[in-house]
Amino acid sequence: MNGAESLLQTLINQGVEVCFTNPGTSEMHMVAAIGKTQGMRSILCLFEGVCSGAADGYGRMAGKPACTLLHLGPGLSNASANIHNARKGNSPMLNLVGDHATYHKKYDAPLTSDITGLAQPVSHWVKTTDSAANLPRDAADAVAEARVKPGRISTLIVPADCAWDESVEPVAARPAPEVPVASEAAISEAAALLKNGKNTLLLLGNQALTETGMALADQIAQVTGARILCDTFFTRMPRGEGRAQVERLQYFAEMGVEQIQDCEQLIMVGTKAPVAFFAYPGKPSEFYQPEARLHTLATVGENAEDALARLAQETGAADTAPRLAQRLPTTAGSDELSPRTLAMSFAHFLPTDAIVVDEGATAGGGCYPATANAEPHDWLTLTGGSIGYGLPTAIGAAVACPDRKVIALHGDGGAMYTIQALWTMARENLDICVVILANRKYQILQIELARVGAQTMNKKTLDMLDIGNPDLDFVALAQGMGITAHKASTIEQFNESFETAMRTQGPCLIEAVLP
Amino acid sequence: MNGAESLLQTLINQGVEVCFTNPGTSEMHMVAAIGKTQGMRSILCLFEGVCSGAADGYGRMAGKPACTLLHLGPGLSNASANIHNARKGNSPMLNLVGDHATYHKKYDAPLTSDITGLAQPVSHWVKTTDSAANLPRDAADAVAEARVKPGRISTLIVPADCAWDESVEPVAARPAPEVPVASEAAISEAAALLKNGKNTLLLLGNQALTETGMALADQIAQVTGARILCDTFFTRMPRGEGRAQVERLQYFAEMGVEQIQDCEQLIMVGTKAPVAFFAYPGKPSEFYQPEARLHTLATVGENAEDALARLAQETGAADTAPRLAQRLPTTAGSDELSPRTLAMSFAHFLPTDAIVVDEGATAGGGCYPATANAEPHDWLTLTGGSIGYGLPTAIGAAVACPDRKVIALHGDGGAMYTIQALWTMARENLDICVVILANRKYQILQIELARVGAQTMNKKTLDMLDIGNPDLDFVALAQGMGITAHKASTIEQFNESFETAMRTQGPCLIEAVLP
Repeated sequence: MNGAESLLQTLINQGVEVCFTNPGTSEMHMVAAIGKTQGMRSILCLFEGVCSGAADGYGRMAGKPACTLLHLGPGLSNASANIHNARKGNSPMLNLVGDHATYHKKYDAPLTSDITGLAQPVSHWVKTTDSAANLPRDAADAVAEARVKPGRISTLIVPADCAWDESVEPVAARPAPEVPVASEAAISEAAALLKNGKNTLLLLGNQALTETGMALADQIAQVTGARILCDTFFTRMPRGEGRAQVERLQYFAEMGVEQIQDCEQLIMVGTKAPVAFFAYPGKPSEFYQPEARLHTLATVGENAEDALARLAQETGAADTAPRLAQRLPTTAGSDELSPRTLAMSFAHFLPTDAIVVDEGATAGGGCYPATANAEPHDWLTLTGGSIGYGLPTAIGAAVACPDRKVIALHGDGGAMYTIQALWTMARENLDICVVILANRKYQILQIELARVGAQTMNKKTLDMLDIGNPDLDFVALAQGMGITAHKASTIEQFNESFETAMRTQGPCLIEAVLP
Repeated sequence: MNGAESLLQTLINQGVEVCFTNPGTSEMHMVAAIGKTQGMRSILCLFEGVCSGAADGYGRMAGKPACTLLHLGPGLSNASANIHNARKGNSPMLNLVGDHATYHKKYDAPLTSDITGLAQPVSHWVKTTDSAANLPRDAADAVAEARVKPGRISTLIVPADCAWDESVEPVAARPAPEVPVASEAAISEAAALLKNGKNTLLLLGNQALTETGMALADQIAQVTGARILCDTFFTRMPRGEGRAQVERLQYFAEMGVEQIQDCEQLIMVGTKAPVAFFAYPGKPSEFYQPEARLHTLATVGENAEDALARLAQETGAADTAPRLAQRLPTTAGSDELSPRTLAMSFAHFLPTDAIVVDEGATAGGGCYPATANAEPHDWLTLTGGSIGYGLPTAIGAAVACPDRKVIALHGDGGAMYTIQALWTMARENLDICVVILANRKYQILQIELARVGAQTMNKKTLDMLDIGNPDLDFVALAQGMGITAHKASTIEQFNESFETAMRTQGPCLIEAVLP
């Protein structure tokens, strides 16, 4: 059994079942090994950023890592932006990066580069295997690291000769890493804060944003009067009917500061203290007041549900019933096609158990509040700020959850970063509806341009933020990659296309042309 | 004058005239500064890999750097693969990467990452500016480094506050860096080798591959009996009528070894000793025999024309007339559409002074030999092995040389990595004809799979190298981005479309559907 074969069987033994691939020559033995096994599904992507974004989506929904198969330094670089998003979202992922044979690296051939250097900024764990014999153990270590909750990025660099040389037996299944629990001191300190009469905020993220975690937080809030918020950009949140609701932190710095300016105490559960996405001249970086007391109930890596359950006990909230969202009546949008009416229709037609991958940016901003009392669903957001995550992440979510409708809500500018994802949706016949919000500009940047005080709004400047001239035709782009697509220029057209898409299996795209 | 404004004027003073942009919030002051100046042309790209590939093409044809404008770590990551290609091709390039304000980095906001770590593997020079006052000087240093011949990659990281704070006066024009000349010892040693009666090879690359350099090498070859070859993947070569011809090193290792197995001595001019692109089990990494004598006449950075002129003097070849290629009759292909007939038509219709950006891969391999005696033209190749360079590089070449027809000869698989480039071609109305060679597979990988001895050619394996199912429709993709496009399923259709494209200004795409 060569290194590649033992590597593959080791991964399968650890529960890794899906590989998003964009291989090259140095990965050919891994390709052959995948081809021989039944236990690893291989999904081809036309660009590496699709592989990594898909692995992120899979990790968020499956709760365990998929792997990517990438071609040396440039392949990793192409995957890197969406690995960054996954890292910031604490999503599990294993990157397999082929490299030149160990003895070939010294020649500095055209594809030679410092892969470790490229991998470190986007990975929690990086290793270059030094022999076929060590490859299975390194692979098992890589998966173990990726499985640390909520999830980590492991990057394993595999020189070609380590894949083709004779190896040893695969590593058997290892147990899942234990999830550490919060300390007693952290619990009792939080309880004390909640009882001292001050204005207190519970901020939830990552492992706290589960049905159980959010319900527990709501129980605590009812008993203690605390306010509950969640991070602006969260990895995954269960929402809609039957789920407890939490308020979301604002995106813009001055709004975030205003939103929590009364908070004297912040208790973080599975996340860090809230800061601005960007700095702006003369505006603060911290959302909280300088004198606010900060306390961490559970770190990102600790068991947040356990911590909340213990805090509920300590605060006498354990037996309080959580307030769960009711399904409230919705109506489809009418009259004009606008972000507002589109959001109404989005909420109205959203099917039960849908997964929404949100890269809707400015034009899609209305869909989140509109769906608070819609059918139960999961909502995924852009955790690392690198646009172009939405289409690939939808692929991974659909692979992880083949029985659920996935909707990628996407700005037009962002969609063009990884538009190649449409082809993989078609090839794998994934149940994804892509909604493109086509306002033909980088609207967020036009807003930001004014906000940062860069006031030269002349034509040359605005042209750099304008993606009209020519207008992108997403229907043609989708059809070019084998996806059924419709353009909606009126709300009636949108309603018809979206309702049909929600009732029909398989990939489709709707381009909503917005003012 | 704020930092961004002084930065921009400094760049203009150093001769940087074009910026390929894909900015975000942290770059808004640079966007505003570009908007205010007349001296910097701004070209918007929908993906950062288009920016960097375009800067590579510009650098190759203009002989001086353009700049890119990129958004933090993920923006740099998206640009990185084509920066890698430029670095391996020794193309000049200046990357401006916006970062968070200096005081904001400690908060680890979503877009925070180790930008320096990401930049180092693809750059010759990396610096993070620490204040607005130092930004102009850092910018001048960055351009000076990029201008070191044949060209280098400079990456300047600009924290947002260094762009928006008050700065100092721009740095005035600096002289171009001097190009070092080869040592006397290197010249006389080469001359001695050429006179010792042994089988000798002159291997040319980079600064040696000019009309003058190639003519001088031919003169030396005539007098000394040396053989002349060039690197397999060169940055730019003048070819066709009126240019001296050089043989090209083979791509595959065993063929390269066979090609030069008789060479007892290798003299490198502007390049390094030839090695295999990839390692293969049981095959050598070095093209040259273990006992071959290696001598460097001029390093990559030294003045290769000067070295060749001095060597011509020393070998008595200075007055020999170089043998220059004649324009030989060509005929368009007929009967069937195949790589062979397409290459015939390609050579037949190629207009005078065309620039060919070659990412034709397996299906395009016939076009290079077919054009040896065509109209004079320049040929650009994939220097770093990271596919997806062709469409962006064509943009940069067309911007640098607006009076010349640019042809991007492209495999279908490679074209999908940076397909967003088509939109910029349309937006800027660039005179580029894209020829897509659509064989609907990663054909090179199917060849490589067999060559590396990974013999499992079952369906699951081959599916990972097959980009049919669904077939990509490049005509629809092009039209979706505002480009006129035609599908050619017969050689007659190809001839008509290609001839028309060669006679007509402006961007177009031809999808040649190959067997």
